[in-house]
Amino acid sequence: MVPRYARPAMTAIWSAENRFSIWFEIEAHATDALAELGVVPKSAAKALWDWWATKPAIDVAAIDAIEAVTKHDVIAFLTWVAEQVGDEARFMHQGMTSSDVLDTCLAVQLTQAADLLLADLDALLAAIKRRAYEHKLTPTIGRSHGIHAEPVTFGLKLAEAYAEFSRCKTRLIAARAEVATCAISGAVGTFANIDPRVEAHVAAKLGLAVEPVSTQVIPRDRHAMFFATLGVIASSIERLAIEVRHLQRTEVLEAEEYFSPGQKGSSAMPHKRNPVLTENLTGLARMVRSAAIPAMENVALWHERDISHSSVERFIGPDATVTLDFALARLTGVIDKLLVYPERMQKNLDRMGGLVHSQRVLLALTQAGASREDSYALVQRNAMKVWESDGALSLLELLKADPEVTARLSAEQLTDLFDLGYHMKNVDTIFARVFGAG
Amino acid sequence: MVPRYARPAMTAIWSAENRFSIWFEIEAHATDALAELGVVPKSAAKALWDWWATKPAIDVAAIDAIEAVTKHDVIAFLTWVAEQVGDEARFMHQGMTSSDVLDTCLAVQLTQAADLLLADLDALLAAIKRRAYEHKLTPTIGRSHGIHAEPVTFGLKLAEAYAEFSRCKTRLIAARAEVATCAISGAVGTFANIDPRVEAHVAAKLGLAVEPVSTQVIPRDRHAMFFATLGVIASSIERLAIEVRHLQRTEVLEAEEYFSPGQKGSSAMPHKRNPVLTENLTGLARMVRSAAIPAMENVALWHERDISHSSVERFIGPDATVTLDFALARLTGVIDKLLVYPERMQKNLDRMGGLVHSQRVLLALTQAGASREDSYALVQRNAMKVWESDGALSLLELLKADPEVTARLSAEQLTDLFDLGYHMKNVDTIFARVFGAG
Amino acid sequence: MVPRYARPAMTAIWSAENRFSIWFEIEAHATDALAELGVVPKSAAKALWDWWATKPAIDVAAIDAIEAVTKHDVIAFLTWVAEQVGDEARFMHQGMTSSDVLDTCLAVQLTQAADLLLADLDALLAAIKRRAYEHKLTPTIGRSHGIHAEPVTFGLKLAEAYAEFSRCKTRLIAARAEVATCAISGAVGTFANIDPRVEAHVAAKLGLAVEPVSTQVIPRDRHAMFFATLGVIASSIERLAIEVRHLQRTEVLEAEEYFSPGQKGSSAMPHKRNPVLTENLTGLARMVRSAAIPAMENVALWHERDISHSSVERFIGPDATVTLDFALARLTGVIDKLLVYPERMQKNLDRMGGLVHSQRVLLALTQAGASREDSYALVQRNAMKVWESDGALSLLELLKADPEVTARLSAEQLTDLFDLGYHMKNVDTIFARVFGAG
Amino acid sequence: MVPRYARPAMTAIWSAENRFSIWFEIEAHATDALAELGVVPKSAAKALWDWWATKPAIDVAAIDAIEAVTKHDVIAFLTWVAEQVGDEARFMHQGMTSSDVLDTCLAVQLTQAADLLLADLDALLAAIKRRAYEHKLTPTIGRSHGIHAEPVTFGLKLAEAYAEFSRCKTRLIAARAEVATCAISGAVGTFANIDPRVEAHVAAKLGLAVEPVSTQVIPRDRHAMFFATLGVIASSIERLAIEVRHLQRTEVLEAEEYFSPGQKGSSAMPHKRNPVLTENLTGLARMVRSAAIPAMENVALWHERDISHSSVERFIGPDATVTLDFALARLTGVIDKLLVYPERMQKNLDRMGGLVHSQRVLLALTQAGASREDSYALVQRNAMKVWESDGALSLLELLKADPEVTARLSAEQLTDLFDLGYHMKNVDTIFARVFGAG
Repeated sequence: MVPRYARPAMTAIWSAENRFSIWFEIEAHATDALAELGVVPKSAAKALWDWWATKPAIDVAAIDAIEAVTKHDVIAFLTWVAEQVGDEARFMHQGMTSSDVLDTCLAVQLTQAADLLLADLDALLAAIKRRAYEHKLTPTIGRSHGIHAEPVTFGLKLAEAYAEFSRCKTRLIAARAEVATCAISGAVGTFANIDPRVEAHVAAKLGLAVEPVSTQVIPRDRHAMFFATLGVIASSIERLAIEVRHLQRTEVLEAEEYFSPGQKGSSAMPHKRNPVLTENLTGLARMVRSAAIPAMENVALWHERDISHSSVERFIGPDATVTLDFALARLTGVIDKLLVYPERMQKNLDRMGGLVHSQRVLLALTQAGASREDSYALVQRNAMKVWESDGALSLLELLKADPEVTARLSAEQLTDLFDLGYHMKNVDTIFARVFGAG
Repeated sequence: MVPRYARPAMTAIWSAENRFSIWFEIEAHATDALAELGVVPKSAAKALWDWWATKPAIDVAAIDAIEAVTKHDVIAFLTWVAEQVGDEARFMHQGMTSSDVLDTCLAVQLTQAADLLLADLDALLAAIKRRAYEHKLTPTIGRSHGIHAEPVTFGLKLAEAYAEFSRCKTRLIAARAEVATCAISGAVGTFANIDPRVEAHVAAKLGLAVEPVSTQVIPRDRHAMFFATLGVIASSIERLAIEVRHLQRTEVLEAEEYFSPGQKGSSAMPHKRNPVLTENLTGLARMVRSAAIPAMENVALWHERDISHSSVERFIGPDATVTLDFALARLTGVIDKLLVYPERMQKNLDRMGGLVHSQRVLLALTQAGASREDSYALVQRNAMKVWESDGALSLLELLKADPEVTARLSAEQLTDLFDLGYHMKNVDTIFARVFGAG
Repeated sequence: MVPRYARPAMTAIWSAENRFSIWFEIEAHATDALAELGVVPKSAAKALWDWWATKPAIDVAAIDAIEAVTKHDVIAFLTWVAEQVGDEARFMHQGMTSSDVLDTCLAVQLTQAADLLLADLDALLAAIKRRAYEHKLTPTIGRSHGIHAEPVTFGLKLAEAYAEFSRCKTRLIAARAEVATCAISGAVGTFANIDPRVEAHVAAKLGLAVEPVSTQVIPRDRHAMFFATLGVIASSIERLAIEVRHLQRTEVLEAEEYFSPGQKGSSAMPHKRNPVLTENLTGLARMVRSAAIPAMENVALWHERDISHSSVERFIGPDATVTLDFALARLTGVIDKLLVYPERMQKNLDRMGGLVHSQRVLLALTQAGASREDSYALVQRNAMKVWESDGALSLLELLKADPEVTARLSAEQLTDLFDLGYHMKNVDTIFARVFGAG
Repeated sequence: MVPRYARPAMTAIWSAENRFSIWFEIEAHATDALAELGVVPKSAAKALWDWWATKPAIDVAAIDAIEAVTKHDVIAFLTWVAEQVGDEARFMHQGMTSSDVLDTCLAVQLTQAADLLLADLDALLAAIKRRAYEHKLTPTIGRSHGIHAEPVTFGLKLAEAYAEFSRCKTRLIAARAEVATCAISGAVGTFANIDPRVEAHVAAKLGLAVEPVSTQVIPRDRHAMFFATLGVIASSIERLAIEVRHLQRTEVLEAEEYFSPGQKGSSAMPHKRNPVLTENLTGLARMVRSAAIPAMENVALWHERDISHSSVERFIGPDATVTLDFALARLTGVIDKLLVYPERMQKNLDRMGGLVHSQRVLLALTQAGASREDSYALVQRNAMKVWESDGALSLLELLKADPEVTARLSAEQLTDLFDLGYHMKNVDTIFARVFGAG
């Protein structure tokens, strides 16, 4: 993760302290269950929790020092805990294998991360919804291929974003469920040395489901699905970010990222107001997305597991979640404070001399009895003149002066065809679909 | 798509004939709805369906020839249909835009493809389940890091695959729902020239949901999620394929791909039996996976759409679905006919002189009062001798001869610790979790 | 490959006919060398070449039919050739292994492909150079972050593209050399059954280098580098394509893809002229790029080889080369026929009221003794007024009216600072760097 | 970057201190050139270097604090330097733009990184070469498809790795040259406010080439090529890592990663010796590779630049170089200390009852006048018996007992065909190709 693109709450999930805390809880809950089953003394479990109740600081450096010798992180941790707790600690980790701890811990971390991301999505959705209603009927030009097409409203653009991020939320909920499983099944997943009830107990305590069948590890198709989902969410961020970047172009300038008083756009050019936040989001999206392939490459571990996934996850676990958290929050800020310029939207809408209404004329001619081909030709020959005049000519005026057109449509009919309200008549319907009643 | 890795049913979905058929149905259903709304004459809709009832051959070459002039595929298609149907056809496509047809068609094709893939998964799951029960209690060595760990059963390996592909099925059902939407909303998604009830009618007829809000196109985050899901499924295929490849290694040889009598493994080496099907699957998985990133790059279309996604989808639409269909079927065949060698599994299980039971001894020593560290050291010093003998020595015999061990565990107790059945006692439990009761 | 994005010459390289022709030549040249070494009769080599001299049609269907039985492509081919040539053919393939033929054939195909791509790049470079000189001094606004910055020339934009594709050419030459090696080293690369001189002879005849050490196969790091290079070239295509798409935006409209008279931009909106070629190139770039990762995943074949790379190469070999060939040719056409609008460029340049000259004023103030911070503040306070007026105000006029500015710079000095020619004084220097003298 | 997979020298390149040092040198060298050209006073340059000569500590926190206000990193840096140096510092950065500093700095950092990586490759090549000569003639089985094929030597395996990493070195030298350019060309690359001789001077001082034509930035196709090359090198690391992992499998055990006395392989299974280093390298390769796509996505910046590449490079710049440096060093250690077991290699070589010699028998039968098909059938029918006996039968003995074989080859001839030395006769030739004479 890059500190510049990291927020504290998500970063904390990936701290050594959080990891070791989760490890402890897994071990202590497992010891509880083992004690309940009579495998270990109840005093062992009690000793662990008694120590934990003192809210002991976790000495990461000490654990790392032990690992430097043992070259095994879980053994190092257990050794350190045993030093703190004393003799009773020897009953800890009975029948378990390191991966039971590591994989269940990762499940907890990823669900913690998913919860933050879900909250981020809620905040983003709220910001988008607020601005969407604010601009529900603000007319603006719709563009396909970067070329003016027909009128839309700025609120509709945001409604599309709302629907898209609502889908992202649904996906993330599914992705969270994918990784929210607990496996405490021993060295090769057979529960040879540990009763399945221990797994069930720990799972329940941690809010996880039981992994139905594990090898030494929780299967990595789950994590692949999780990170692929983050990549899709990042791609949706990129879409909205690029929309803002386009709108802020000098020639378009229908909206702008908020520009604070002290901010300098360029060391050389003092007039610049650059969409740097959304450009940044574009780059961050590339990074989050790039985690999808290594996560998928992690699936095909050898036999009951190899450890090749581990280094990948040390990168993408923090990187993808921390970066996505930051990006969602940044996008929320951008949308929340976006400077929107309805006058400029109207000006751009008008700049093509009414070409944006050409399709409606085409349809009206067809309705009035012309063949589709003839209608198309009639509209196009006038439209091309307007186009070539760079908006100086008016399509409406040209049509009114074209006898083959007026033979079918009166001047009044033609004027009606250029009504902007015509394009907004279904905005309510669409908003109801997206935001529900109310 | 590569013909060698393609099956007819899936390939047919991507044929020009199927595409044009779907286009026709979209247009004709829409004309029905438009007629119902009084926008076009009912005779227009009737004319279309009357012609369609003659089961006309679709002249792909003729349509292509028109497109060569118009450089626009939907216009070419409409022109050709109009040539066939006659004057009434001019009411077709009223208020619609090409993308209404193209995107809804893609939705139909992708759901058709998903249905085939779901059937493939069912067949694969059935094959895996059959073989899993066949080898439910066939002992084999579990390996982590490629190194012998502890015993499992071959049925458990397959149960893991079953659970994994069951998850894949759940994911694919979700992915199918992602892309199963219909958009008939006009040039920029405002329904300016077409009533939303047309969309609802066509959607219902085609078995699709209504897209709540579209631009000119159905948003591409849906397709990104679809192809990312295929990538995850492909990665699960890779995992099982690599398992088979490992099992077929000369030194392991616990299972083999079926080898037909006439087959030649090598032009040079007549003795070879190579796991070429699963190697092939490994490569095919790489290809299906590679569609995920371009699908995600397709999300950020400009404004209300640009057409950059189209060429990508012309590749990955067929390639990813056809290849995955082929791969699933191939894997089903591999599992169905897999030659399994239980004797060799037992032989491999025995080859390490009993080292696979070391953990159980460790636990027993701890239970018998030794500290964890002492227990570890006691086991390891004997284990290392066995390891260095390459399995010639027996861990059980060495332990029986180690007075520090026998001070805590009797010879009888030690012998009991080497019981294979101990590792299988929870297989029923796991099978019930994976396959359900019964 | 998708036929719509394929050109005949490149497609032919990947035809079965070309592949079998190359196989034959490899086998026949090898037989020559074997005959020279006395391993096989010279009559065997002569029989092969005599048959070949008859320019026999290669019966792909017959070979495929044999493969359906043998499940081995090279054996099928050899069997078919033997049927044609007769008894002498039994000396063919002596000591060779299938991969000797397959991998050397792939080397020939990839170098043939690279040669076409190099010719494509030459054509593209020629088109860019011609247009660059045509517009060497055509002023246009330079933009960073999509925001007007300072003046450049349109020729400079093309000079940048020229330099970029020149680098691509250098890279492709290196990539061609990477894959232009011949391996005829037998089943595991030891030359146990074939003399290294056979390899040297075939390599020389085919214009390839000798692979210094092969396993059963030519190492796949070579191919990974080849396809990664194609991915970089595709990314450069994307850059220029996106530049054109931006320039064609309605609000910018400084350049347009050529629009042929019969062309229809939209089935619904007759006025539209969309940059569909460059949008298409954006998508094609994504596809070519997507071959890089599977090509890299192909590197780590097991031991002396597994065949997982083969299916990947059946896709990406044709797909990446055919698509890149098409894309380069399409881009060449776009640049060659690009409609360029210098008047519009000037108009856009002027639209910000002279803000593009702000940096020069900043520097002049600094030179005139103001501190950098003061200069920045002076310029920015006037620049912001112009910015907020949407270009209605003139920066020059405001500066002339700002006493703190005129205290340091005279009206005449200020006017001089707004000279466009100032920005073009080094265009000759840059052109000389890029295109060389003359 | 993940600290666990980072070494100090490479990490230091990406420290804030190193970055600011490079920034200073760029600015100071530029000021020298500007002074030489008479644009700024020579005293300004002198003031900068005088301060620098005091080896001032760079106060990263102070610079960060300024950036928190200005939201612009280069301005923050210049402000801080001006605070240290005093009034003369106002001449710094004359006519330059931030990207001149940032991009040239990145060029310096990437060349520093490339130099470390080249040294890493040299160390790796030396280790591989040493072990290759040590085992030049150590016989081992060559495997294709994971199945025993024919004998090779362990030295040959390493010679292949040597050739592969030699290619990687050549590629890295080319990649270093790609990014080793300096651009000081002003806000949009026109040198409007800065003389090209400044660029030339700074380039020469920093050991960089002049960028022939830049926009505001150095074009990103260069960086794409750089990171793609790192991805290929990582893939070669993966290949060798997977080879070691295979060799260490329990059933193969021909080589092992060095296992230090205190090391624990498993918290549960004391007998385990896992190839954790090479498994780790497999994962690290996935990560380095994953930088290739975002680097390619960075190429298509908008117009004269947008800043989307920046966040990507803040990740992949450090991540890919630091991780690759670590991986190369780790692989060097693995190879250097690899435990190689020639006896086990011989044992594995013998385990198939001589099947590995089948091709040679096939060729001899052909030479003795049998048709290829008959020879194949004769060998295969005996080979299959050996195969099915799991190596208990001997191919040589079976052949000697097969009258159709002995009709063509005497017992003595057959025995000769099973000579291991036959397969090693060209090892010298191959070694000379790979390592040169000597």
